[in-house]
Amino acid sequence: MTPERITVGVVGASGYTGGEACRLLLNHDHVARILPFSRGKEEFETVHPNLLGCGLSFVSAEEVLERRDLDAVLFCTPTGEAMRAAKGLLARGVRIVDLSADFRFRDPQIFERTYGKTHASPHLLTRAVYGVTEIYREAIRSAELVANPGCYVITALLGLLPALKSGLADLSAPIVVSAVNGTSGASATAPEVSHPAATGNMLPYSLSGHRHGPELEDQLGRLCGRPVHVLLNTTHGPFARGIQATISLRVKAAAGQLLSRRAFLDIYREHYGKGLDGEHFVVLNDRPSTGGLNAKEYSLFPGVARVCGSNFCHIGLDYDASKERLNIVAVTDNLVKGAAGSAIQNMNVMFGFPETAGLRHFGI
Amino acid sequence: MTPERITVGVVGASGYTGGEACRLLLNHDHVARILPFSRGKEEFETVHPNLLGCGLSFVSAEEVLERRDLDAVLFCTPTGEAMRAAKGLLARGVRIVDLSADFRFRDPQIFERTYGKTHASPHLLTRAVYGVTEIYREAIRSAELVANPGCYVITALLGLLPALKSGLADLSAPIVVSAVNGTSGASATAPEVSHPAATGNMLPYSLSGHRHGPELEDQLGRLCGRPVHVLLNTTHGPFARGIQATISLRVKAAAGQLLSRRAFLDIYREHYGKGLDGEHFVVLNDRPSTGGLNAKEYSLFPGVARVCGSNFCHIGLDYDASKERLNIVAVTDNLVKGAAGSAIQNMNVMFGFPETAGLRHFGI
Amino acid sequence: MTPERITVGVVGASGYTGGEACRLLLNHDHVARILPFSRGKEEFETVHPNLLGCGLSFVSAEEVLERRDLDAVLFCTPTGEAMRAAKGLLARGVRIVDLSADFRFRDPQIFERTYGKTHASPHLLTRAVYGVTEIYREAIRSAELVANPGCYVITALLGLLPALKSGLADLSAPIVVSAVNGTSGASATAPEVSHPAATGNMLPYSLSGHRHGPELEDQLGRLCGRPVHVLLNTTHGPFARGIQATISLRVKAAAGQLLSRRAFLDIYREHYGKGLDGEHFVVLNDRPSTGGLNAKEYSLFPGVARVCGSNFCHIGLDYDASKERLNIVAVTDNLVKGAAGSAIQNMNVMFGFPETAGLRHFGI
Amino acid sequence: MTPERITVGVVGASGYTGGEACRLLLNHDHVARILPFSRGKEEFETVHPNLLGCGLSFVSAEEVLERRDLDAVLFCTPTGEAMRAAKGLLARGVRIVDLSADFRFRDPQIFERTYGKTHASPHLLTRAVYGVTEIYREAIRSAELVANPGCYVITALLGLLPALKSGLADLSAPIVVSAVNGTSGASATAPEVSHPAATGNMLPYSLSGHRHGPELEDQLGRLCGRPVHVLLNTTHGPFARGIQATISLRVKAAAGQLLSRRAFLDIYREHYGKGLDGEHFVVLNDRPSTGGLNAKEYSLFPGVARVCGSNFCHIGLDYDASKERLNIVAVTDNLVKGAAGSAIQNMNVMFGFPETAGLRHFGI
Repeated sequence: MTPERITVGVVGASGYTGGEACRLLLNHDHVARILPFSRGKEEFETVHPNLLGCGLSFVSAEEVLERRDLDAVLFCTPTGEAMRAAKGLLARGVRIVDLSADFRFRDPQIFERTYGKTHASPHLLTRAVYGVTEIYREAIRSAELVANPGCYVITALLGLLPALKSGLADLSAPIVVSAVNGTSGASATAPEVSHPAATGNMLPYSLSGHRHGPELEDQLGRLCGRPVHVLLNTTHGPFARGIQATISLRVKAAAGQLLSRRAFLDIYREHYGKGLDGEHFVVLNDRPSTGGLNAKEYSLFPGVARVCGSNFCHIGLDYDASKERLNIVAVTDNLVKGAAGSAIQNMNVMFGFPETAGLRHFGI
Repeated sequence: MTPERITVGVVGASGYTGGEACRLLLNHDHVARILPFSRGKEEFETVHPNLLGCGLSFVSAEEVLERRDLDAVLFCTPTGEAMRAAKGLLARGVRIVDLSADFRFRDPQIFERTYGKTHASPHLLTRAVYGVTEIYREAIRSAELVANPGCYVITALLGLLPALKSGLADLSAPIVVSAVNGTSGASATAPEVSHPAATGNMLPYSLSGHRHGPELEDQLGRLCGRPVHVLLNTTHGPFARGIQATISLRVKAAAGQLLSRRAFLDIYREHYGKGLDGEHFVVLNDRPSTGGLNAKEYSLFPGVARVCGSNFCHIGLDYDASKERLNIVAVTDNLVKGAAGSAIQNMNVMFGFPETAGLRHFGI
Repeated sequence: MTPERITVGVVGASGYTGGEACRLLLNHDHVARILPFSRGKEEFETVHPNLLGCGLSFVSAEEVLERRDLDAVLFCTPTGEAMRAAKGLLARGVRIVDLSADFRFRDPQIFERTYGKTHASPHLLTRAVYGVTEIYREAIRSAELVANPGCYVITALLGLLPALKSGLADLSAPIVVSAVNGTSGASATAPEVSHPAATGNMLPYSLSGHRHGPELEDQLGRLCGRPVHVLLNTTHGPFARGIQATISLRVKAAAGQLLSRRAFLDIYREHYGKGLDGEHFVVLNDRPSTGGLNAKEYSLFPGVARVCGSNFCHIGLDYDASKERLNIVAVTDNLVKGAAGSAIQNMNVMFGFPETAGLRHFGI
Repeated sequence: MTPERITVGVVGASGYTGGEACRLLLNHDHVARILPFSRGKEEFETVHPNLLGCGLSFVSAEEVLERRDLDAVLFCTPTGEAMRAAKGLLARGVRIVDLSADFRFRDPQIFERTYGKTHASPHLLTRAVYGVTEIYREAIRSAELVANPGCYVITALLGLLPALKSGLADLSAPIVVSAVNGTSGASATAPEVSHPAATGNMLPYSLSGHRHGPELEDQLGRLCGRPVHVLLNTTHGPFARGIQATISLRVKAAAGQLLSRRAFLDIYREHYGKGLDGEHFVVLNDRPSTGGLNAKEYSLFPGVARVCGSNFCHIGLDYDASKERLNIVAVTDNLVKGAAGSAIQNMNVMFGFPETAGLRHFGI
């Protein structure tokens, strides 16, 4: 039976992701109470000045985790915390969406190799459902523990999914994913992310390999039933929010000459449906190209600012016939569809709420 | 009798303000149908890529203005259009919120002097109610025609109101209003507002006198029952949205020595109420100051980005004892509380809907 | 006798201002050696990545202050350091430009009231020359100790000077100075100045009175021979560098009706001379206005980004006949003309070098 | 014989690149006279407000091209103009640096396929020297006609050169180049490049293949003596200036296990020399890595803002052992090293001036 309105704990509520979860939950018709927990000493509205007047206050960890009426917890914590607290909560029937990396891998060895620490609850890894709603919706309905995906990973997966399902991709070549993320995805403590240092600038990082690379390869392997190689590069750009993933995929030689932008748009439209009546949060930019040679037709492709504040993923694509490559651009708000928004989308599915509850507003 | 769900025309729907009105109306429980009108040739979603997939299309002027089931029209047009169309719509019982300057002045001579054109419907000026809901809520309830205020004006009025009502202001000295607006408030056609020219830059303008100066003086005169002088300076800053109005007000000499930041915070809190339960969209930043001499305590004062995308006005203040001046900072999103949001707030009041319908989300 | 090429110490070389001093000195024909001192542990090029490859390294305080061949020291330190070190250096014949506030006031009581600390060398205050080269050039020629002005103060002074000298200002009304500064002028340690918090945002501060207010009043009093009242408000805008000062000045009633933008442009042009052949670093934007009522003619007024990286101050103005106010916009780079650039300009004058040495490049 | 000071025509002087050329030439010791030509009607300083007071005025095409004392012309024009004017100028002994694509390909067919137009002077193509000074310095010394490279191409070439020369690259796999360029590289007329649309946004474009792809492949083929395949993706980021090229290169299998970041830093340092004494404008960021797993060590890699306004190219790199890929980040200012700066560097070489004349200042 679905409770009409639930009580949700937000652990790690002083970070960007936790604050975003609170912002969205404040306008959620099926959420009666929000319990934000943080170890910090500042007041809630000082940490999240956009929520001035909202009336929330930080509560102690005990108050969050030991409340009798607690229905769900969103972990917006660094890697390592959810894996320790999950067991007790699950035993009490509390449903969990973990936004950290703790439960994203089924194989604890990949987790340990990627994150450099031992997993505290390896037995829970196979109970966790990976939280791309658009792929694992049915399993999420009955899940008690959802592992929310990495922000780069969900963006790339949504961009790639129809092409992979079409069977046209040549997976013997690595898939290239060039990603730019807003500075809200960066550690706020590095001096390079001060405003004077970061404005008008780009901050490339993890050139020796980003942790989301193995996660993306793990997921693509599951989807394709064979190993998939990914070349992922990551940079922070001079904006607060949003991820642009530019993806390049080799098309099978036999198919290459027959393909076109139009053909791939059809494949994507068929996969995701048309507009908000299809897969609600994944929207295809299928404007017809009017330009000739190398036209800079910006309106053919998504702009990351257009999804800011929203749970939408916009996708555009073009076909490079000379290279036989499908080039895709997918954009999300790293704090919403890339984190708190898809967590709430998953929570909605877990509790039988309308999937779009609390998430219907458009980008600004 | 209040209709459950209404049909709303948006005239001038290809501009920033019109697009914003559509964005907000798309999530309004009491709006059944949105009719966006624009003379342009592009498709709706090309003009407003943040609304990709929303399903709206531009309709012809005839379709907007001659529909039998039209309940309300928002004019998001340049000055001069609403004044010509209003009479016919009002005769058919259609309620109007005009976001242009056409109906903001009761005296057609002030309009004509300020905007340099003859008024087409001077007889309607006294039927129009000035649309700061927080001031004229009762009159708006029964209004057929609401003149939505200028974005600088509503921001300054909300910032000034409690201080003026307190009787502590010395109105023999001009009130200083230094305002910075996002570039969405600028003419998009000027080459100076291209991204390379405007990023990292400021664009001061109208140094010989901005049109919102007379509007603000007109409103302040009505509120105070005597002429009030305003010195308004205006600049576009390198952000898309939002107005910061920094206001300086002389305090009456007799009162000056007794006053303090704390005393004025009490006056403001009493006027607007506390948090969202008081005047919902006007929220006071009343954090206690911890710092000593000249501390840069940014958290004491509102940041314009914190209200972006929302209908909120955040207000902060401090008292300069050496000058006997109350200094106030009020911030709004120029496209929401400064335009489309307060228009919808007014529409809600006119139709008896909950005042916050479609407007409850926080800034991002 | 003028040394051909000098050795310059930069104390406080890890901050924005100190880094900027090094950047400019690296291309200065009359500087043989730069000695940057900082207490920090990081390497010079890690702190100042724009100077990658320049070859400078931080040196110890001893190396800076006790070198025999030291000719000049620029203090880019917080208030309180130069006042302790100055005496010893001056005794050794080292010339000093202090970019902090230590020597800006002749009266130690105003310093102590404004900065809340006792002055360590009050006897040196009258030996210091205030470093607006355009006003005090002759005194600077023979100065051993120059007090470089506050960034807001020099910008406002250059904007005001011709109007004040014209005798047309009505100084019984306060002069309004609304100033927006880049985030490089803010404390880099406040979390509000992180990129995600500050981008697209404004950070108003010191609403109870900024320390540069008394400094500006002190200087204006000296220039005008009578007390001058200033209302200064300050905000950080979402750009790294640059100050825009928007100034409003009442014109004497008798003169008001006869005045015009054109008349004031003539006054300013006469004062500063025409182009780079006049006062080299102060340039008037005297484009003819083509627009009618309230035209947003951005090209009439300076843009702060246009002086970034340069030692120029651009000035524009307009006259508001209805208010009898002269409105002026003056822009500088807060780190160059507002700090390190004017310090080097003063150093050039002190050593008899060409005044523009190391400072000739334009904004980008 | 080298003339002491020359007269330089700048054709297409109203664009960003032409303005930048003028800005740099204004501080060039060996330039006596600058003749900026533009078809536009606006005044020079209105178009380039950063050069306020510089004294330049636009001259007619005749005045530029028919002057007797003309020594050099920089073409800052769209493709198609230089190819028509070059022959006559060369016949008069005027040296040309063409910043457009007209002379970048030796094979007119590749030009025609890439740019969709017939070449007007195919016989001149083999007389043109490709203008990456760091590669073709000797040929440029005696060149009459230099084809300045595309901004993306020079950035990628400088980033790739030492790795390619080392023989460690496995060229059977395509080289991935993900590039983000400032909006000054975009067409200023597209509405998407207005400030409100582009701030906080990214504008991906040319997903079907950017024109600089064939140019880069052509150059790499010449350098490597065999066909090289490039996957180039391009986006405009929300900053005015600068290109970040993130490059991924497969390393030969035999070598892969033995390699490291340190080994490649040595290769790059050896190729370019150390600091400004080596290849002056190409500087390696070879900070030692202190972090462990996936540390976001931003200071290891170049930031595009750090070269803004300067002619420098900063390079950083890391080695991904699990993928056997060398990942490189190279940054330039697209208007300086990517256009006007390298054009002047080439001009300096052609005339026997010091190569750094007019180009010595650092980024801000």
